[in-house]
Amino acid sequence: MIEKIKAAAERLKSVAHETPVMTSRTLNRLAGADIFLKCENFQRMGAFKFRGAYNAIRQLSDAQRAAGVIAYSSGNHAQAVALVSRMLGIRTVIVMPDNAPATKRHATEEYGATVIGYDPALTAREALAAELQRQHGYVLIPPFDHIDVIAGQGTAALEMCAQVGPLDMLLVPCGGGGLLSGSAIAAGALSPGCRTIGIEPELGDDATRSFRTRTLQTVHHPQTIADGTRTASLGKITLPLVLEHVSDMRTVSEAAIIEAVRFLFFRMKLVVEPSGALGVAALLSGSVKGRGRVGIILSGGNIDGPTMTRILSTAPVQD
Amino acid sequence: MIEKIKAAAERLKSVAHETPVMTSRTLNRLAGADIFLKCENFQRMGAFKFRGAYNAIRQLSDAQRAAGVIAYSSGNHAQAVALVSRMLGIRTVIVMPDNAPATKRHATEEYGATVIGYDPALTAREALAAELQRQHGYVLIPPFDHIDVIAGQGTAALEMCAQVGPLDMLLVPCGGGGLLSGSAIAAGALSPGCRTIGIEPELGDDATRSFRTRTLQTVHHPQTIADGTRTASLGKITLPLVLEHVSDMRTVSEAAIIEAVRFLFFRMKLVVEPSGALGVAALLSGSVKGRGRVGIILSGGNIDGPTMTRILSTAPVQD
Repeated sequence: MIEKIKAAAERLKSVAHETPVMTSRTLNRLAGADIFLKCENFQRMGAFKFRGAYNAIRQLSDAQRAAGVIAYSSGNHAQAVALVSRMLGIRTVIVMPDNAPATKRHATEEYGATVIGYDPALTAREALAAELQRQHGYVLIPPFDHIDVIAGQGTAALEMCAQVGPLDMLLVPCGGGGLLSGSAIAAGALSPGCRTIGIEPELGDDATRSFRTRTLQTVHHPQTIADGTRTASLGKITLPLVLEHVSDMRTVSEAAIIEAVRFLFFRMKLVVEPSGALGVAALLSGSVKGRGRVGIILSGGNIDGPTMTRILSTAPVQD
Repeated sequence: MIEKIKAAAERLKSVAHETPVMTSRTLNRLAGADIFLKCENFQRMGAFKFRGAYNAIRQLSDAQRAAGVIAYSSGNHAQAVALVSRMLGIRTVIVMPDNAPATKRHATEEYGATVIGYDPALTAREALAAELQRQHGYVLIPPFDHIDVIAGQGTAALEMCAQVGPLDMLLVPCGGGGLLSGSAIAAGALSPGCRTIGIEPELGDDATRSFRTRTLQTVHHPQTIADGTRTASLGKITLPLVLEHVSDMRTVSEAAIIEAVRFLFFRMKLVVEPSGALGVAALLSGSVKGRGRVGIILSGGNIDGPTMTRILSTAPVQD
């Protein structure tokens, strides 16, 4: 699998941004460790999802490209698939619930995708996507449970290890487990002994429970502010990869997530979406005890105005 | 003067951050030029002001250090002087109006400074600072009209030229003219032919009028959102430097400043305060027509929650 990640990195060279790694004396002091923040909020379309989408779509055959691609997502995966397809001249259909924020629909359409809405109370998005696939022959690009997508996501950690050297610990947000499993494999290969820890919101702790019980657990429509991790469960491919390569899983409260976004905004001048701030939340809340050289993947920066306003107007937690 | 800037850069080596330069395909497309953003929002204490304060305070004699320093400011200069003095073990007094935001007072105190409040309706800050100087022997560190402060500020442009190579144009926010004159001198020396253009809010256009008339003009309590540029006028030292080294001055509307902060937030994931966004505002609003390779100094990122909330809730200008 590490070979697939290295091949993905070759494919992404001069296509994806080599995102910077930021540090902060204040964060180091608060965490009692040397913290390295991999800024995937500066990635193209604002999140690591570009890596996986590009790696998967770039490998489609000519016939598949001619047929077009389809994805179901109201978040960063939709924008990633739309941007990559536009770059490669491939027709794209995105299936998105009618109640998705207008800004997300608009951003996806701006990248040239056709957005097909549906009423989530009446229709399952998987069924609708399958029907569209059947009718039109589109190729489905899954958000995480796909080996090329996982390999692409792993390139962020691979790149980070090359930038900063060996790590003792790597903290990675976990939704469907694509970024987490790819990161754990990359860090395990490039930085032997590095413990990769997946971080989830308490409200969406399915992967943590799956990890503990070694059986797939699910969660339904978790009301966490970390919208990138509202996925119902790990996937058929990501579950065994997480069980094999990830050292531990931890959860963080909603208050800790909000504090972390505020810290990144006020102290580090970084715009990071709630899901992207999970690693910092784990350190600052004490859910993970920092030790040695700690990498954190800031997975994305796509936050809308109302959500940021809500976070900025939340009174800081008293120490 | 360029020698003083180079000496300042030596002094700041491994003390100030070498801040990154960011680029954006979208911004290049919108501006029709290659844009390089020098991210002084990532500088220590969140703004370029650290450079000037350090360069000035570092050169004080032992006797001056023992006496302590004083500054009057409710903004980034206060925090810069406080941080530098703490680093060098020097006692600091900051004179700040009673109506300054509690967050600014708190941030300055966190850096270990003693804040002395005054009622701006009853007392002139200069008079109060002069009285404290007389009583206690403090050394005054002026916010811009001081040769060592100007030389320190010039290191940001010096560093940028070394990072990205020659520029055709450099856009710099202008308050009291310390950053602007230092930048113009540095860019003129390292990138001959580069036109340095100072950018001011329309509501605080004193330096633009001074530039056109070649006579010192003032403005009183301009109500611009760009609080870092509310300075009443250029200084005795900065006025002639601006007249000699700056190629032009331009102004931008409040709406353009807000649009620029929004663009940097949503598209580039950068937290930039309104004053820091003046260069981007000039480009995006057409106040400056981009050409060739254009450097922009994002001078700082210290924005409070209510101001950012106001900006995020402002409806975007329609194209």
